[in-house]
Amino acid sequence: MHRTITGFSNPTVKFLRSLRDKKHRRREKRFLAEGLRLLTDAREAGRLPEMLVLATGRQPHPLVTALIADVTAAGGDVVAMDEEILAKVTGKGNPQAVAGVFAEFDTNLANLDRTGSPIWLVAQALRDPGNLGTMLRTGDAVGAGGLILIDDCADPFSVEAVRASMGAVFTQRLAQARWDEFLAWLRDGAGAGRGQLVAASLRDAQDYRSAPYAAPCFLMVGNESRGLPAEYEDACDLRVTIPMLGKADSLNAAVAGAVLAYEALAHLRG
Amino acid sequence: MHRTITGFSNPTVKFLRSLRDKKHRRREKRFLAEGLRLLTDAREAGRLPEMLVLATGRQPHPLVTALIADVTAAGGDVVAMDEEILAKVTGKGNPQAVAGVFAEFDTNLANLDRTGSPIWLVAQALRDPGNLGTMLRTGDAVGAGGLILIDDCADPFSVEAVRASMGAVFTQRLAQARWDEFLAWLRDGAGAGRGQLVAASLRDAQDYRSAPYAAPCFLMVGNESRGLPAEYEDACDLRVTIPMLGKADSLNAAVAGAVLAYEALAHLRG
Repeated sequence: MHRTITGFSNPTVKFLRSLRDKKHRRREKRFLAEGLRLLTDAREAGRLPEMLVLATGRQPHPLVTALIADVTAAGGDVVAMDEEILAKVTGKGNPQAVAGVFAEFDTNLANLDRTGSPIWLVAQALRDPGNLGTMLRTGDAVGAGGLILIDDCADPFSVEAVRASMGAVFTQRLAQARWDEFLAWLRDGAGAGRGQLVAASLRDAQDYRSAPYAAPCFLMVGNESRGLPAEYEDACDLRVTIPMLGKADSLNAAVAGAVLAYEALAHLRG
Repeated sequence: MHRTITGFSNPTVKFLRSLRDKKHRRREKRFLAEGLRLLTDAREAGRLPEMLVLATGRQPHPLVTALIADVTAAGGDVVAMDEEILAKVTGKGNPQAVAGVFAEFDTNLANLDRTGSPIWLVAQALRDPGNLGTMLRTGDAVGAGGLILIDDCADPFSVEAVRASMGAVFTQRLAQARWDEFLAWLRDGAGAGRGQLVAASLRDAQDYRSAPYAAPCFLMVGNESRGLPAEYEDACDLRVTIPMLGKADSLNAAVAGAVLAYEALAHLRG
């Protein structure tokens, strides 16, 4: 059975709108994903929303019907509301007018299995949620295990990051850690599983095309404005440089991560 | 001599604010670039604003002083206004509180010299100004000649695109054309200057790592949602595919362009 909501002041509407705000997401440990495509990607990855939100009075798309069945079977909540109210909750670009509330995933570094994938992406103090989501999307494409967020990054569960990930937030592992925690975890792995830490860098670096990448390979990019701190670069096993032939001295962070990730993939696939 | 503006309703303030809107930019054939870094990049590329806008009552940064001198010498306008008013004009993220109004550049395809660079980027119906600016930035980094915008793309002179380009809007050539115009221009070039058109594609494509790139090489990516139309792919000299190992079937458009551009660069530099 659906619940139907008719007023803007309904507590569920307020709850949904509050999830656009990081503070509320942190408190609720829940996040919002909008649009049929994202929700279907989630479902195919075995992730169902705790709450599915729909517009009333629509002939549902077959994929929406499938979502309703699965969410109901899993004991989740299905809520219908006027399209006008839903538009206030989810914003534009949601023509099927569906959204879902998901429990945040575990982002504990200790629970990552680094041997599960040859490539991992690492972002340090990445501030733009679009860049963060794009890195998740690239990670999915190169068969990476996931994205490790170091220091104070944008929220991977923000609506913008979830949208830019194009569903990869549901398939890539996410971890969040301070630099010291990450380095201790990385160096604590035994033998071949220890992990090679690679920085995109301009200092004391070798050409990214001929560098000796080794799995599991952790490819790290830094903050959009400042890049990586020098001491973080110093701690890396490998510093690689991407040619910059023009006036600018850096690439977009998500672009740098992707160029490195595809290069490492070509080497590690053999 | 500076002009000083004290009211929100001043016509210059209205003019500056109107340049955030595409319709007004088209009419005025002017665009806005914000922040000392962008204006300095422009100056170093030999592009000076027609109007330089500053906050009153500040000890100017030496680079601002240099800008004032150059703009004045070139017969441009220097306008000072309260920081509060300037903030309404330029938005956040502009700590030096400077902005400039530039005349739009010539974007006529006929005026591009295709033999000037081994690589050109081409975007078809690219809708996101951030992606467009990021492609300009990548183009600068790989030594591309410029970015050719096919069909109905985001405005390269929007504040978002200019910002994401990190100054490359001032160093890369820009052209705008319909597909038929572009194809006619490309095929009309004589001999070696004719140009190789390459699409990122999943159909009938070869691996992007081993494809025979040839200069001048035009690397084309399609719309963020729909990709390239099939008939555009058919018209290409080369269709190359980037591995997609995960659940998703595409990369972010600016990422796909960058992965291709760096691959082509490695081949063409020899």
